[in-house]
Amino acid sequence: MLPQTLVPYIGLTAAFVTTFCWLPQALRIIRTRDTRAISLPAYAAFSCGIALWLVYGISLGDLPLILSNTVSLCLQLTIVGLKIRYG
Amino acid sequence: MLPQTLVPYIGLTAAFVTTFCWLPQALRIIRTRDTRAISLPAYAAFSCGIALWLVYGISLGDLPLILSNTVSLCLQLTIVGLKIRYG
Repeated sequence: MLPQTLVPYIGLTAAFVTTFCWLPQALRIIRTRDTRAISLPAYAAFSCGIALWLVYGISLGDLPLILSNTVSLCLQLTIVGLKIRYG
Repeated sequence: MLPQTLVPYIGLTAAFVTTFCWLPQALRIIRTRDTRAISLPAYAAFSCGIALWLVYGISLGDLPLILSNTVSLCLQLTIVGLKIRYG
């Protein structure tokens, strides 16, 4: 088993990684203008889900949830916008 | 403000949507065999982040975190595998 003192850091690292990992996807699309393999339903649904996590975080007053989902939502909406633009 | 009784349902809906939204992305790749626009660093990092969420959920004994991240990890690893296969 993991030492209990490590557990919050694992959660924080998980939140950081799953938030900022979408930056290379957005940058790749900006660089190549290629979105053909990107599924619009997947990214639109993911954006809606992230928006719900944000509402959930605001309802609980949970700052880590609010911050990470605000950044995620910006990145996801960028990808959705680029997909709509480039097709 | 939202009624407090609604808040857990928003969290559950958010978890459901952000878990299963990757199914259309995986299915699109299986159908088209096209992964050119997919960023391997993004999906590899997202998979690592999901794995960390899973470790976090197991450490806390949190069943919703464990279940949703197990499904997410399977879908993400499928997409990563398809990206490596189709390039």
